[in-house]
Amino acid sequence: MTKSKINLKSKLESIKDYWSPKVIAELNDYQFKLAKIKDEFIWHEHNDTDEAFIVIEGNIEIELEDRTVELSEGEMFIVPKGAKHKPIARGEAHIMLIEPRDVKNTGDIENELTAKNDIWI
Amino acid sequence: MTKSKINLKSKLESIKDYWSPKVIAELNDYQFKLAKIKDEFIWHEHNDTDEAFIVIEGNIEIELEDRTVELSEGEMFIVPKGAKHKPIARGEAHIMLIEPRDVKNTGDIENELTAKNDIWI
Repeated sequence: MTKSKINLKSKLESIKDYWSPKVIAELNDYQFKLAKIKDEFIWHEHNDTDEAFIVIEGNIEIELEDRTVELSEGEMFIVPKGAKHKPIARGEAHIMLIEPRDVKNTGDIENELTAKNDIWI
Repeated sequence: MTKSKINLKSKLESIKDYWSPKVIAELNDYQFKLAKIKDEFIWHEHNDTDEAFIVIEGNIEIELEDRTVELSEGEMFIVPKGAKHKPIARGEAHIMLIEPRDVKNTGDIENELTAKNDIWI
């Protein structure tokens, strides 16, 4: 539990690697995470939870099985539980994710894109 | 569950009254709410949950028993479960709240500031 206020852009400055969400706050058993992303992620799903995406800077796409959701700064989208999705950023983008603690960024897949959980900045 | 993307500033345009959070999205059993606030709210606490404040526009203060947290656009703060707090906005400010469904905005107090829950925009 952080006891201080959090400045999203200041926290983002300390993130160097893409697709590696860093925790900035906890709300009960949920975590707020910031990430820099660029290029295409992989298709995956989270079978136990919805996942919130909020764009802080730049533009992203979230490919779903039946359509693509395009998000710009100040826009958000909730990926429903179990929905296969592939996040994409054509240029660098900065996003905030909100989801329960311990959600794996690659869903059921474990590969080189799987990020360590619970890394705070 | 909304199936569309959400533009925070567009949603805020439809809010007319102060201190009356409107729901824009659900994440499992949590809700994202937007509110316009101005002047002082009342001291209250939420005994069963933390509460996230994110400032979308303007400046706010969150008075706690031992200090005051000042937040500007792009800053957030988690009020811990059970912590007495009083939100204040010296000018109009726009905020997003994230908390479990059914949290009452005035905590255990019921008065003219108590807002109806689960009003979506």
